[in-house]
Amino acid sequence: MTLNRQPISVFDAVSKVVENVSHIDVETVKLEDSYNRYLAEDLTATHNVPLFTRSAMDGFAIRSQDSAKGAEFKVVEEVPAGSMSDYELKEYEAFRIMTGAELPKSADTVVMFEQANVTEDTFTLRKTFEPYDNVAIEGEECEKGEVILHKGSQINPGTVATLATFGYAEVKVYRVPVVGVLSTGSELLEVSDELERGKIRNSNTPMIMAQLERIGVHAKRYNLEEDNLETLLEKIEKMFNEVDAVITTGGVSVGDYDLLPKVYDKLGAEVLFNKVAMRPGSVTTVARAQGKFLFGLSGNPSACYSGFELFARPAILLMQGSTRAFAPFINAKLGEDFKKANPFTRFIRAEIDFIDGTVISKPAGFNKSNAVTSIAKSNGVIVLPGGTRGFEAGDEVQVMMTDVTSGVSHFQVKQ
Amino acid sequence: MTLNRQPISVFDAVSKVVENVSHIDVETVKLEDSYNRYLAEDLTATHNVPLFTRSAMDGFAIRSQDSAKGAEFKVVEEVPAGSMSDYELKEYEAFRIMTGAELPKSADTVVMFEQANVTEDTFTLRKTFEPYDNVAIEGEECEKGEVILHKGSQINPGTVATLATFGYAEVKVYRVPVVGVLSTGSELLEVSDELERGKIRNSNTPMIMAQLERIGVHAKRYNLEEDNLETLLEKIEKMFNEVDAVITTGGVSVGDYDLLPKVYDKLGAEVLFNKVAMRPGSVTTVARAQGKFLFGLSGNPSACYSGFELFARPAILLMQGSTRAFAPFINAKLGEDFKKANPFTRFIRAEIDFIDGTVISKPAGFNKSNAVTSIAKSNGVIVLPGGTRGFEAGDEVQVMMTDVTSGVSHFQVKQ
Repeated sequence: MTLNRQPISVFDAVSKVVENVSHIDVETVKLEDSYNRYLAEDLTATHNVPLFTRSAMDGFAIRSQDSAKGAEFKVVEEVPAGSMSDYELKEYEAFRIMTGAELPKSADTVVMFEQANVTEDTFTLRKTFEPYDNVAIEGEECEKGEVILHKGSQINPGTVATLATFGYAEVKVYRVPVVGVLSTGSELLEVSDELERGKIRNSNTPMIMAQLERIGVHAKRYNLEEDNLETLLEKIEKMFNEVDAVITTGGVSVGDYDLLPKVYDKLGAEVLFNKVAMRPGSVTTVARAQGKFLFGLSGNPSACYSGFELFARPAILLMQGSTRAFAPFINAKLGEDFKKANPFTRFIRAEIDFIDGTVISKPAGFNKSNAVTSIAKSNGVIVLPGGTRGFEAGDEVQVMMTDVTSGVSHFQVKQ
Repeated sequence: MTLNRQPISVFDAVSKVVENVSHIDVETVKLEDSYNRYLAEDLTATHNVPLFTRSAMDGFAIRSQDSAKGAEFKVVEEVPAGSMSDYELKEYEAFRIMTGAELPKSADTVVMFEQANVTEDTFTLRKTFEPYDNVAIEGEECEKGEVILHKGSQINPGTVATLATFGYAEVKVYRVPVVGVLSTGSELLEVSDELERGKIRNSNTPMIMAQLERIGVHAKRYNLEEDNLETLLEKIEKMFNEVDAVITTGGVSVGDYDLLPKVYDKLGAEVLFNKVAMRPGSVTTVARAQGKFLFGLSGNPSACYSGFELFARPAILLMQGSTRAFAPFINAKLGEDFKKANPFTRFIRAEIDFIDGTVISKPAGFNKSNAVTSIAKSNGVIVLPGGTRGFEAGDEVQVMMTDVTSGVSHFQVKQ
């Protein structure tokens, strides 16, 4: 409850969050429910891939030593994918073979249909073939026991395919955290309420619930009946019993009616920081109590949005063991002047576009911290370092790609 | 069923898909169910934002014409957020006001607490203030009736916040398509099956289901009891009655046992293309029947993966009216040699990383079209144009960012 909070840098603030993360418990889920979860153990190959030396094309399996321009072969058998034969090819014999089918004994190469002059049960070659042409050799992709993906990897569609290949009908993953969301502020109306003078509808709660949904996390919504210390404390204590992390919006600044600092006191919470050298959202607070995070985001929608992306998102992904918990940063050309210098790092909602392979980023409409509409138009956030100078259109700046599911391994903001 | 199919370029193939898209029907959903859906009508502001001129800071509301160095003000009332007063400020009077609260009549500026020398019920200023300092003016963000977002916009967390702000408890969106997935091939086992000689587990069906889940689309899985024309035709006819689009894997090449071309014939389907100048996946087929798409993807996992991302994904998003249906392409440095020239465009599963704002892309492990494990390690696809030359490490190449939720408005592959 002091007016003179000491701001820490954005990098230090994120580092403090990261240092305080503890992993959530592990559970076993069915393969079909595993997409977008995080592996809680290394994924190991249960057999060689390919399991057997097989044809990579539709064609004729032959012994490469028989191949030569004009050499004539006799087709002795045919093997669709999924079938196999114990027959051992002899000189100038061939199998008609389909993609994926096991190569017959002594065969080591496949001639594609279009590479042969075919006549009834025979064909002739137009050139010599090397061993293993058009063939996938047993174990060439990976060997039994090899670690394919490490613990903490996000299960993407390719991971699902790999798990299926190796017969993992179930997989150990980190549990999905349940995150409680509560917006404070007596000026807040529900979405279906008629507007009243002096009031606004609560947009932060549904926004954060969508931000949580975007990273596959379960949100639990809480409502506050009255905006006083006792009710708020009671509500947050209830949330702590029901969820794995708490996000509040509003009530964190230095105004006379901002109650959360008092709630942190009562809870005996360890406040990691309560002022960050950033605009908007300098009053963002992150605390820990009972081994759980309490994210006190600003009530201003834009500050709330970037506060979530900067602190809550990586923390919630790290709880699930993610090794790529941060939004990627990319260099882009600034599309508009920001001439006024600011000592704090500025986060500006931005529209990122990819034109001819180059990243262009311009502010997404009206840029004040209370702007809601510009969040809807943005798919990233321009980051302007704090300091004594302003920025001009054309300057190279960093852009945080918030609307990206796949992240990177480190928080990459410039210090 | 001809061996001599005419390949078309990747760009032309995608264009053919785009030309044949028709919009799916529209439905109304609750705000809390709207994330990741596509707006079926423009989103219009139902009131000015801000609705009233309000304080952007905690401080004292004054009339700017009274402000001067040393000027003394008397605090006559206090206004928390959500409250308001009809009192009209007189000369050298001030309101103690909280962020978000409506400015009293005749007040036009807010002095932050830390900008004033406060003593009991009075304070003095250290400088002059301009009108609208620390104030959000009615309608400055947007005006009633303004179109905020156009039809076809993806509903992101910011859109949810905007809908809430304007009191849209429900919103019209395009229905989520149901997509049927069927893998063909008698060599395929289920994930829980023991491996048999000559067979592999079906990894394409679960992979595609995860690719569909990634774009928020419902997948319906079908199994094939027997791999013959009659059963396959019956199954696909059944799928057509139950889903909005059909994806099959395997059965599309020129092998003797590939039945899908015959099925397309029997269905009277219009085949948009059945050969694309790309590796892997040149046999990828897209057809239309009964107003629905039929995506015939290759049975090779990597070809299946990129075939989905190139053709099925944008089609399914366009059906929902999306204005940003394509994966972004970005320029990146190639991390490895690809010296062998290929007349076809090559798609290589890649690991994209963002290091100091620069995009680095390297092939994700073993690169053959039957490689499953490298899909799991990839978050993008390197695109090497077809032609007469190979590529060297360090060459600038395009990378398709497949693992990104927010897309761009046009398919950006170089022609």
